[in-house]
Amino acid sequence: MQDRLKQQLQFIYEIDKVKSIIRRTRLFHVDKRENDAEHSWHICMMALVLKEYADDEIDILKVIKMLLIHDLVEIDTGDIIVYSKTQVHVEAEEKAAKRIFGLLPDGQGDEYYNMWVEFEDQKTAEARFAMTLDRMEPILQCLYRGGEDWRINGIPYEKVIKTNSKVANGSKHLWDYVKSEIGQCNTNGGFKDEKIISEH
Amino acid sequence: MQDRLKQQLQFIYEIDKVKSIIRRTRLFHVDKRENDAEHSWHICMMALVLKEYADDEIDILKVIKMLLIHDLVEIDTGDIIVYSKTQVHVEAEEKAAKRIFGLLPDGQGDEYYNMWVEFEDQKTAEARFAMTLDRMEPILQCLYRGGEDWRINGIPYEKVIKTNSKVANGSKHLWDYVKSEIGQCNTNGGFKDEKIISEH
Repeated sequence: MQDRLKQQLQFIYEIDKVKSIIRRTRLFHVDKRENDAEHSWHICMMALVLKEYADDEIDILKVIKMLLIHDLVEIDTGDIIVYSKTQVHVEAEEKAAKRIFGLLPDGQGDEYYNMWVEFEDQKTAEARFAMTLDRMEPILQCLYRGGEDWRINGIPYEKVIKTNSKVANGSKHLWDYVKSEIGQCNTNGGFKDEKIISEH
Repeated sequence: MQDRLKQQLQFIYEIDKVKSIIRRTRLFHVDKRENDAEHSWHICMMALVLKEYADDEIDILKVIKMLLIHDLVEIDTGDIIVYSKTQVHVEAEEKAAKRIFGLLPDGQGDEYYNMWVEFEDQKTAEARFAMTLDRMEPILQCLYRGGEDWRINGIPYEKVIKTNSKVANGSKHLWDYVKSEIGQCNTNGGFKDEKIISEH
């Protein structure tokens, strides 16, 4: 029993490292970049508060479990901005998931590894709604600053719409809302003018 | 519908502030003090991984909801170290809970306010197990550094044991484990010698 607990505690110590994985997006209220633990906590809160907008019937506990663990792989791979993810990154994350969830006792590690795979595969209602929230939080953060982070990182309006349209897979209502807000942000000059970029 | 969503988003923006509420305890892997969002995320992970040690049958979703929201009141009150909490702090937290959960639409705000009260009241199995984890994480952090933070803050061994014995209310097994580790830390000189303190 005590060996099992010690193994579980090793996992609990290890995952502390996500608090040092810094994302591209910034907090709403202060000019500081967010880390993965803060992000994971915030999207769990969003899952609770916004669950009524899920298109399908969902097991909210499963959604929250997925959101709590979904970024642990970045302990090994670092944060990869959604606009530049490649197959190499996907394979690195797979390897990381095996190592990190492998710290847990048999059975428990498999449960969370499988949950991580389910999130990545995006085939279940829970995985899709979890993704809705994972994508929606950075969009809200960018919108909160009038699109400044999209301008800084040179992400054009069309790419933001295309890459984040996955939000719609879990909640058409939430996607309609953020899509409209992104459009408004574009109208207000929140994105770099594509023509100006191509002239330089 | 859209007004309701906007009200929910106001709450989601507001709670971002817990990421700037800095606790006394430090992260496991780096010498940086933890914030409330990181702490809340970590104890949710602990709830998942350690739920088999709960003494009573628990609804783990309810435990996780409590842990996600339990520190939101500190947006208004700031972090209060567990060793110096008074009735004045309790009243300030009550007022903060009313303001913060009051940002949510009717019904939803009540649900989370009542959940926060349930956690504070410590009368249900879920509230007790949530408290076990809330207290256990900083203990593990202090133990990880050989008790350095207890020494720095001048918290004697007896006070650590007395104040944290609430861990036992949710899990005797986990309390036996950490109590034994705190004892070992004391033996290894992890606490200030009370006699030496009183001589100065």
